[in-house]
Amino acid sequence: MDRLFDEELRDLRRKLLHMAAHVEEAITLAVRSLKERKEGLAREVLSGESITNDADIAIDELSMRLLALRQPMASDLRFITSAMKIGSDLERIGDLAFNIAQRSLGLLLSPPLKPLLDIPEMSAVTQRMVRDAIKSFIEDDEALARDVCKRDDIVDQYNDQIFRELLTYMMADPGTISRAMDLILVSRHLERIADHATNIAEDVIYIVSGKTIKHHAEEKGTPGPNSEPRPG
Amino acid sequence: MDRLFDEELRDLRRKLLHMAAHVEEAITLAVRSLKERKEGLAREVLSGESITNDADIAIDELSMRLLALRQPMASDLRFITSAMKIGSDLERIGDLAFNIAQRSLGLLLSPPLKPLLDIPEMSAVTQRMVRDAIKSFIEDDEALARDVCKRDDIVDQYNDQIFRELLTYMMADPGTISRAMDLILVSRHLERIADHATNIAEDVIYIVSGKTIKHHAEEKGTPGPNSEPRPG
Repeated sequence: MDRLFDEELRDLRRKLLHMAAHVEEAITLAVRSLKERKEGLAREVLSGESITNDADIAIDELSMRLLALRQPMASDLRFITSAMKIGSDLERIGDLAFNIAQRSLGLLLSPPLKPLLDIPEMSAVTQRMVRDAIKSFIEDDEALARDVCKRDDIVDQYNDQIFRELLTYMMADPGTISRAMDLILVSRHLERIADHATNIAEDVIYIVSGKTIKHHAEEKGTPGPNSEPRPG
Repeated sequence: MDRLFDEELRDLRRKLLHMAAHVEEAITLAVRSLKERKEGLAREVLSGESITNDADIAIDELSMRLLALRQPMASDLRFITSAMKIGSDLERIGDLAFNIAQRSLGLLLSPPLKPLLDIPEMSAVTQRMVRDAIKSFIEDDEALARDVCKRDDIVDQYNDQIFRELLTYMMADPGTISRAMDLILVSRHLERIADHATNIAEDVIYIVSGKTIKHHAEEKGTPGPNSEPRPG
């Protein structure tokens, strides 16, 4: 039975890794569709959306089964309850990639407002945070998890910078407002993805160190006018 | 020991109720500070923020302890794992109320853009959703939970309507852009609060009916250009 339990835990780990790879790919495609103005890439994100939802349900069900049948103690218990929370975070990251793809389709109906540079860069940092958050969970790597938390400030700075720049477009020409607003929302979606990655990393630190740094993060940057750091 | 366990479950229930009452009050104060232009109310929200964070941690710790020591089966197991998820949702609702209070402080530095009518109405619907979601959880009331899910569409409609109206202000006078953007963000924060309430209600339906409707909600309205319904 112990060997079976180990196999089940590995299965849970694998499911999380697959799900993470899928949402990461969804973010890439959604932002590429925006930058390269390719509708097909956005549609690919929209059509793959049920995959994350099914994955979240599968992770929940496996976790509940393990809790009920295996009655795990200590570190396994923490791993399983964290897996459930991480599944929810990944599912919401998938939703946000879906929202970016929807915005992209809307934006492709009008000529581009400007060449996109910051948003793809911000997206690269954000995706990396998601990947490293999951990696830190799988490998029990507290240092990596702390590093992910720190990178949240970089994403907040991108979000501010993008907001300010787009505001100047809107002020100068009200005809750009609708497109600029859409880009601001894309940037906010990326910021929220980074928040979810940070949540995951905080869970990892909690698991590894056995204490809660959630809500007590010491590494907080100076928030700009448009950044809304999760309070705490 | 069974009586002790029952008492512990009641304690968990009580903690969730207190936390929910606190975040609901935070939403009220944040929106009132905006409508009545009272800085003190916003500051009250900002200063009470650690209460939700501490409550989330306390719920997590009690739940983990019950899972480890009581090894609950079936419905108790579901209740406890759901309590952990609901605690996270309430904590994020608290963060969003905090964000609204921050926006309010920013908006109070400028003269009002317009009398606020829709946002307080939207907020009333949203708060009610939070209250009823928790009530449905405590009372195992599946019908109430389904009703909460349906009300999410009303909030999305408010969000669209508010967005469209503020867009006309921005188009007509670029001097209003910054304030209009802030109000749009407040409206989006309320929309996200409603999403969290819907998550809670979906969990309740899952507990009560034993099956997952999450990601398969049949009741979806027609999304407007600014609403981003959680896909699914």
